[in-house]
Amino acid sequence: MKLLRYGAPGEERPGLAAPDGTLRSLAGHVGDIDKAMFDDPARLSSLRALDPATLPVVDGTVRLAEPLARIGKIVGIGLNYHDHARECGAAIPSEPILFLKATTSLCGPNDAIRLPEGSQKTDWEVELGVVIGRTARDVTAEAALDHVFGYCVAHDVSERAHQLEHGGQWTKGKSHDTFCPVGPYLVTADEVPDPQALHMYCEVDGLMRQSSSTAQMIFGVAEVVSYVSRFMTLAPGDLIITGTPAGVGLGLKPPTYLTRGARVRLGIAGLGDQHQSVV
Amino acid sequence: MKLLRYGAPGEERPGLAAPDGTLRSLAGHVGDIDKAMFDDPARLSSLRALDPATLPVVDGTVRLAEPLARIGKIVGIGLNYHDHARECGAAIPSEPILFLKATTSLCGPNDAIRLPEGSQKTDWEVELGVVIGRTARDVTAEAALDHVFGYCVAHDVSERAHQLEHGGQWTKGKSHDTFCPVGPYLVTADEVPDPQALHMYCEVDGLMRQSSSTAQMIFGVAEVVSYVSRFMTLAPGDLIITGTPAGVGLGLKPPTYLTRGARVRLGIAGLGDQHQSVV
Repeated sequence: MKLLRYGAPGEERPGLAAPDGTLRSLAGHVGDIDKAMFDDPARLSSLRALDPATLPVVDGTVRLAEPLARIGKIVGIGLNYHDHARECGAAIPSEPILFLKATTSLCGPNDAIRLPEGSQKTDWEVELGVVIGRTARDVTAEAALDHVFGYCVAHDVSERAHQLEHGGQWTKGKSHDTFCPVGPYLVTADEVPDPQALHMYCEVDGLMRQSSSTAQMIFGVAEVVSYVSRFMTLAPGDLIITGTPAGVGLGLKPPTYLTRGARVRLGIAGLGDQHQSVV
Repeated sequence: MKLLRYGAPGEERPGLAAPDGTLRSLAGHVGDIDKAMFDDPARLSSLRALDPATLPVVDGTVRLAEPLARIGKIVGIGLNYHDHARECGAAIPSEPILFLKATTSLCGPNDAIRLPEGSQKTDWEVELGVVIGRTARDVTAEAALDHVFGYCVAHDVSERAHQLEHGGQWTKGKSHDTFCPVGPYLVTADEVPDPQALHMYCEVDGLMRQSSSTAQMIFGVAEVVSYVSRFMTLAPGDLIITGTPAGVGLGLKPPTYLTRGARVRLGIAGLGDQHQSVV
């Protein structure tokens, strides 16, 4: 299933993308797309049993929200792509680099990105998002994917000056409002047979800046989930964003960043596309 | 008011500490101690108008929980005490160092601290916790304290090997389950006339390890709230832990850490005390 949420901020309703491309409402069947749903396999099975063609059609011009409510935490993985580590001139990390992004940074996949006051170095990063479905604590890599509910496109927008030039710890550059567009869909894991073979891209003002594959990940999804679960408990509804491939603005010569009025398009094969304007 | 929550994990109920020292139930008056309460000044006024002596007494041996439900994020401030920076041999930061602690690390003030598997370097840090009551985004230091709902004792338990020896970013050593005991009380701001003049201490196995004052803070509460609000929106129910004074295990010669069976006692004048055993 391709789950989604639609409507004005604060008034989102649950829905899905039907195979015919229409948006359909799930409002009669589930309260919201959130961890309460994951904790109830019976409800999930009953959703799967629905015929999408029988669900009410939603106007396709409606705002899409992040496809999951009440995300508990956003765990980021730094420098997790071979091609990105090369462009940064950074050594391949011997273990995953973790950071947390404030959940107040979440927004819908096509919401505008708001540049922070005075920002000169706001950068793009297309990433594969992994949504946890079952509590994971000290899980092995072999068991890790059993704890994944689904996948989504995530944009890890990053202010490089705040991240790197204001005294340690990346959180400062990662947590501004609108710095984590997620969606359009939360695609259930059964529809993603191999999360390490997904093409991904990010285009800025019509120029293709990132074009790579999750095959470039240094630590794959299973390894990342297992590793993170050694340092903190992953709860249903937590989101892990698994790192970005080569082609970010920081890596360009000269470095190039988002400016007011820029338009960004990004996506991952099978998970959908995002379109943002920068304001 | 000294607000609190009591009961088994997952079944907490709201209460308060009455001036006579008894715990009293607020279950008939408010659903929980959380941001929904802060958003409703009328409800807060009606709580203030209650005569604590008329509220049902709660058995004083009940478990206390963190005194605030649904904390949205925990923002930590690093190296924020003059005496602690000196003991670390670190330069005084030119601006606050921020990190995020996973909210899954929260627990009650007297719950056991669970050492992570194989941990050799789990350290103590008594800290002043600041709970946000009104949304703060780009607020000035002058206006910052208007956004504070209250104060609490927080224990920023830290695994130094995970924090410092596993490749960048402190989050790894700060986010384990039980690494953020909070409470016993959430003391409303009107009862803390000067948050920069509070004695604080931490004792491990009967040895006084930290004994200092919030007067040692490099960036005071108002400055910290203002600064953080430039990088992320602070929402009602968010918690800022404002740094620890000198005397942590990492600073001792030789460094000394918590071991199984250790007993920790810590507190801040007017905000209460915590007692933990290490398991």
